[in-house]
Amino acid sequence: MPVIVQKYGGSSVADVEKIRRIAKQVCATKADGNDVVVVVSAMGKTTNELLALTRELTETPPRRELDMLLTVGERITTALLSIAIHVEGYDAVSLTGSQCGILTNDQHSNARIVEVRPVRVEDELRHGKIVIVAGFQGMSYKREITTLGRGGTDTTAVALAAALGAEHCEIYSDVDGVYSADPNQVSQTVHLPVVSYEEMQEMAQAGAKVLKSDAVEFAKRAGIAIYARASFSPGRETIVRKDIPAEYHGVRAVVQERQVALVSFLGTAVTERCLDILGVVEQSITPIKELRLHCPERQVSWARGSFVVSTSTLPDWQRARGALLEAGGAEIEIKDGLATLSLIGVGINRDARNVIRAMQEMTRIDAPIYGLSTSGFRISFVTNESVLDDAVAGMHRLFIESDNR
Amino acid sequence: MPVIVQKYGGSSVADVEKIRRIAKQVCATKADGNDVVVVVSAMGKTTNELLALTRELTETPPRRELDMLLTVGERITTALLSIAIHVEGYDAVSLTGSQCGILTNDQHSNARIVEVRPVRVEDELRHGKIVIVAGFQGMSYKREITTLGRGGTDTTAVALAAALGAEHCEIYSDVDGVYSADPNQVSQTVHLPVVSYEEMQEMAQAGAKVLKSDAVEFAKRAGIAIYARASFSPGRETIVRKDIPAEYHGVRAVVQERQVALVSFLGTAVTERCLDILGVVEQSITPIKELRLHCPERQVSWARGSFVVSTSTLPDWQRARGALLEAGGAEIEIKDGLATLSLIGVGINRDARNVIRAMQEMTRIDAPIYGLSTSGFRISFVTNESVLDDAVAGMHRLFIESDNR
Repeated sequence: MPVIVQKYGGSSVADVEKIRRIAKQVCATKADGNDVVVVVSAMGKTTNELLALTRELTETPPRRELDMLLTVGERITTALLSIAIHVEGYDAVSLTGSQCGILTNDQHSNARIVEVRPVRVEDELRHGKIVIVAGFQGMSYKREITTLGRGGTDTTAVALAAALGAEHCEIYSDVDGVYSADPNQVSQTVHLPVVSYEEMQEMAQAGAKVLKSDAVEFAKRAGIAIYARASFSPGRETIVRKDIPAEYHGVRAVVQERQVALVSFLGTAVTERCLDILGVVEQSITPIKELRLHCPERQVSWARGSFVVSTSTLPDWQRARGALLEAGGAEIEIKDGLATLSLIGVGINRDARNVIRAMQEMTRIDAPIYGLSTSGFRISFVTNESVLDDAVAGMHRLFIESDNR
Repeated sequence: MPVIVQKYGGSSVADVEKIRRIAKQVCATKADGNDVVVVVSAMGKTTNELLALTRELTETPPRRELDMLLTVGERITTALLSIAIHVEGYDAVSLTGSQCGILTNDQHSNARIVEVRPVRVEDELRHGKIVIVAGFQGMSYKREITTLGRGGTDTTAVALAAALGAEHCEIYSDVDGVYSADPNQVSQTVHLPVVSYEEMQEMAQAGAKVLKSDAVEFAKRAGIAIYARASFSPGRETIVRKDIPAEYHGVRAVVQERQVALVSFLGTAVTERCLDILGVVEQSITPIKELRLHCPERQVSWARGSFVVSTSTLPDWQRARGALLEAGGAEIEIKDGLATLSLIGVGINRDARNVIRAMQEMTRIDAPIYGLSTSGFRISFVTNESVLDDAVAGMHRLFIESDNR
């Protein structure tokens, strides 16, 4: 029997009524003759409510304890969804990340899945049960409960799909897939029916919230397609898969990230200094290795001696910032209030045409360029957050609205 | 270093402010030179809130899934208390029941602890940490998460204390120990500074809410004293221990239980019929073995062919009642609207004097006696719930207010 893994995010399971609707949808998939594994997030505001409780105690809770606390959110959803499925007359069993064999490193609050041993999941499927899995969590080799960080439920779903040899993985949220830009911001956005793994990963790293890069990596390695769909409005979807037709090559999306800082090293012995300073930071904050250092062309970036930090996802940023300035003295410069704008697409950099057109557009709208980096699938600019909206609209007009379809 | 186990119930950890106060108290015990293990319940209303969510789906959720859901309540408290202790400058680690090695049978929603392997707890204590344990939960030999039923957090605390060879176990709640009757009901109650294990167990089985009989059993077997104290008003306490001074022998408490039913077998082949019917019930409801069959003098009760059921603690009672009536036909009679009244004390039945005085009092206040059972520590009557208050007041006046002190 084919195995299908479905993932439902927080807004899809925000209340009992929605959980009931999801239960019917899950049972329909089971009735179609599939083995079904469902991975869920915490209900709507649960995580924020739990965080509010800790904030009454301290702004800097031990990350291990925070993981113990936050993982209950997904546990509540799994049990309720399992109960709702029983009400529909199907047999279901809820499992924690550790019961599913999601093994991680011990980086609390931002753990990485190192292995998936879904023995228990396979057993339950064999007994005809629908398996409901708590996303976003795992167990470290020290047998500690860990969380996977933002977007971790997607990673759980895709990693499980890969380990189970699933047909494909369905990611349900409140949007029906991936667009050429944020539809809340740009009016003429285009829906993308198919996106390559690499494009999706670049979009995620460039700040798109649809799917986490880690999750796509698991799909890529296992060759499993991801279907991104809207929970309650069937119809359009985006398929993330290996090869995409040639007609889809070129600039396909404009992705932005707000609240970033640019850290530049001005000294002569830049490379060694970088490492020293990163050493200091590493001691002062836990997840330095996960800082999302946006310097994909690593050598180039280091030679230039600067990197981009996503400050909005980093609760400890102010502390890290202080440590960097203290260690670096006059040799370091940190510029805040910035944003990144990225163009994504297969073959985007086969020649310099797209980079030149993009730089001309930045100049036209008076958007300063503090940094530029490129990869086979991406062109990124660092600019002022204040001009970001104009720049995104301009790039979307230039590359999508006029070029595409 | 002596190990002290402390247990804090739901009202003691009802909000973050109370958790902060408990944290200070725990740290003080640690600072006094003890290894400290703290067992906690879910915060105030958490369990009821979670149950309300399931009730939106069904009145009869699968017990396994209910356990998955309800155990998160204690998890939230452990993590918050651990964070609060870190804020006080001490090192703490929160553990789930399964991480503590609390192994149970697989009777979901009413599991029994079969073994405690506190390896992880001992390790953490050795590293100088205060260990915070989620009460009321364990792991079955099938590696499923189970709950211990009402009062289970006490059982967790005492079982852990026994397994760790603790100095003693401190149970904190909103009352400062055990009284000669419910102080909310009887005005002239007497505080009991010391109570024997057996008296405490009889009181629990007779309906007192202070300490569960299971919990006392663990203390009795390990020879550990239990100190029952009020969380936020130090002072009086009740010590539950092996021997109590001779001056405390005699009737020491009047204990009641409301909402009980009396099931009577009227047929000739009573004993076999009982077993048949219990077999039927066993299939129709899960926790029949835990029905709290109040027939301590087992042979006598069976010969009499009747037993008492505590209906208030049995969500499935209406279903079980139907099954019993269906199976028993004319040979069974079930009487509802009853209550039990029990007199507890060491040596209470050395002669028949107390039983006779008690029966005279029941007659004086026109309280019918549907059943009578006695043990070395207890005299129990089954009567109408409507006359319970008068009967309790009368017995307390007769045996405590006039006899004691």
